[in-house]
Amino acid sequence: MSKFTCEVVAVGTELLLGQIVDTNSSWIGEQLAIAGINSHFQTKVGDNPDRIEAVLNQALERSDAVIVCGGLGPTQDDLTRDIIARVMGVELDLNDELVAKIEAIFGGRKMPMNNLRQAEVPVGAEPLPVMPGTAPGLKAPVGDKVIYAVPGVPWEMKQMVDQCIMPDIKARAGITSVIRSKTLRTWGESESGLAERLGDEVDRLDRDGGATLAFLASGVEGLKVRITAKAETEKAVEEILTEEAQRVRAILGDALIFSDNDESMEQVVLALCAERGLTLGIAESLTGGLIGSRLTNVPGASAAFKGSIVSYASQVKFDVLGVPEGPVVSEEAVIAMAEGAARVLDADVSVAVTGVAGPDPQDGVEVGRVWMATMVGGVVETNTVKWPFDRDRIRQFTTITVLNALRQRLLALP
Amino acid sequence: MSKFTCEVVAVGTELLLGQIVDTNSSWIGEQLAIAGINSHFQTKVGDNPDRIEAVLNQALERSDAVIVCGGLGPTQDDLTRDIIARVMGVELDLNDELVAKIEAIFGGRKMPMNNLRQAEVPVGAEPLPVMPGTAPGLKAPVGDKVIYAVPGVPWEMKQMVDQCIMPDIKARAGITSVIRSKTLRTWGESESGLAERLGDEVDRLDRDGGATLAFLASGVEGLKVRITAKAETEKAVEEILTEEAQRVRAILGDALIFSDNDESMEQVVLALCAERGLTLGIAESLTGGLIGSRLTNVPGASAAFKGSIVSYASQVKFDVLGVPEGPVVSEEAVIAMAEGAARVLDADVSVAVTGVAGPDPQDGVEVGRVWMATMVGGVVETNTVKWPFDRDRIRQFTTITVLNALRQRLLALP
Repeated sequence: MSKFTCEVVAVGTELLLGQIVDTNSSWIGEQLAIAGINSHFQTKVGDNPDRIEAVLNQALERSDAVIVCGGLGPTQDDLTRDIIARVMGVELDLNDELVAKIEAIFGGRKMPMNNLRQAEVPVGAEPLPVMPGTAPGLKAPVGDKVIYAVPGVPWEMKQMVDQCIMPDIKARAGITSVIRSKTLRTWGESESGLAERLGDEVDRLDRDGGATLAFLASGVEGLKVRITAKAETEKAVEEILTEEAQRVRAILGDALIFSDNDESMEQVVLALCAERGLTLGIAESLTGGLIGSRLTNVPGASAAFKGSIVSYASQVKFDVLGVPEGPVVSEEAVIAMAEGAARVLDADVSVAVTGVAGPDPQDGVEVGRVWMATMVGGVVETNTVKWPFDRDRIRQFTTITVLNALRQRLLALP
Repeated sequence: MSKFTCEVVAVGTELLLGQIVDTNSSWIGEQLAIAGINSHFQTKVGDNPDRIEAVLNQALERSDAVIVCGGLGPTQDDLTRDIIARVMGVELDLNDELVAKIEAIFGGRKMPMNNLRQAEVPVGAEPLPVMPGTAPGLKAPVGDKVIYAVPGVPWEMKQMVDQCIMPDIKARAGITSVIRSKTLRTWGESESGLAERLGDEVDRLDRDGGATLAFLASGVEGLKVRITAKAETEKAVEEILTEEAQRVRAILGDALIFSDNDESMEQVVLALCAERGLTLGIAESLTGGLIGSRLTNVPGASAAFKGSIVSYASQVKFDVLGVPEGPVVSEEAVIAMAEGAARVLDADVSVAVTGVAGPDPQDGVEVGRVWMATMVGGVVETNTVKWPFDRDRIRQFTTITVLNALRQRLLALP
């Protein structure tokens, strides 16, 4: 890791007031970490000229580069351009190219005079070549250091950081090597359990080099294993990542790893169904529609997903799904629900869940008790868990767990 | 507003690396704003002793109070206690009361020696009296200023800030008045539209005082109008809030305002159904289960919610809901879906949605086109919109919009 450091400053009174959570700084921090750039501080400051100036000066003192995010809009509150000019000790100059670009965006519609402010650039600074919205980014050299300014709109900011700023920072930091990472997603083992299983491999990597492993818990998105590697060329780094992913997969096994490409469980299950030409139906009780909702978050879900019977009331389980009268949080009920889902929705495979999400026990069944079923090839398999979680997490963990069970059965098909 | 200032410091390398988004600072910032305390900076710093010390010293220089969040756990990485002692120029002392408290939490189970670190307190500082988990909070005077330390676990942090720190800060800031806010939630008007409708009232409040209004867009949670008022007593402030809420309601009307108690649309709709003894059934297509999922997020949903038929595939609309063969994104289809939901789920009232969430048009219907229906007292009413949004927001906005239509019809019942 180089000694070069870069810190992040987020500008906006709304961030201090808690009206907006600053996710931009977190994202930028992650990009710096992945690239191997040290970053020791992140600061949020309001729309106040003197305080922005003080924060930028301090950041330049203790770091080699500063990425400042926000305050590049057209209004009088947007002070970042002006303060960068002040820090550089220069005037602002209207940039003709930017005027033309911004006018082109308005495409003949009358442009508010305010928007011309966005075409002002401190003398000696330059606009970033990538400009996805109406707010230009800036690269402003200060002595042998540099301030990059990007707008607070996340999709504009991300393109500028990715395409302009990271390559420039890496060049300044003398990083000629390529750093890439690859994220495997797992389900079925705790974070400490994963760390234990991969302990020997982590030790080996510490000793021999090659790649590093990091574990990130992400709730219903699964538990992620991020492999990061560095090499001289794209090709070499891809080879290291591919080889290390194979090692990790050999240790953890296909039952735990559901994606080596950072896909969600829903994407994976839908793709497996579509590949095999199978349609999918759901019967859900405690999840109340969450399983269907997550599946249909995936564009193109309709290729496999037929629908879901959300049978929250017991009577719906009996009437629509054909569950026999009796306890509805039980193995018998969940089997009938899986069969009912496939029959009613005319689906090839199905999953079903029933349980108690709380806050109160139901029919003598404790909070957190869940029955799950998968039906593949006409055969229903079930399992039960008792989650020690709150209502929200009981529903989320049930969703990913039953979809993982279906995934494993689809993989086992000839 | 008093001249007293308080800033927030979040400690943890995982925050800089972007592995965790710092929502704690945002929440604390909001509490300070609501209480009328100025807050000019928020800083994130990693688990590094010298850098934490530098950040705390700078915060004490420029602010009257500092709330530092994180780094109070039992491991060697948890440095906040040690650095506060260093900033105070004192030693750490084992606090017998805290030892007893922590031992009690372990309840006879063997306590790892590490946990004793959490019972250490800088000499001259005191533990916060509220301690919801195993990590004690601290109040550490430094000259005439003060550092408060709270753990990074949100539910522990929030209780300490709410019950111990805010009252102490307000006393230090000389704020004897009571500041409270009340949040009305609305749906059906844009943020700028709300601001326009309430423009005269905002002007009146600027002139006459009494309360302030703020507008906060929150997607599927609705558009919030926050009324904040200050007075000498709880009773007086409640009176101002109640009176101002009535004024706002008189201007905006019941059709727009769905809650004057910060409740979600789902809570309101479920409560209206339950009060009227009506059961609710859903038929959803493009939302894929989202409407049911959000309703069942509410504990006690089972009092009214019977279930949802997620008819994603057209064939499920025909077979299960009795939609006539033909275009499924149409007024005819959504009427049949609402009727089908009530019939199949044996529900008194129902809502139904069908539409194109994208990314591609479907059967010649453009992305964003949605049909919605509500059925109350056997009568179906429909409407259609063309959302100019992405897939995710099309689904979210459809959910809150159709539930709002049902709410209005339930309110109109005799």
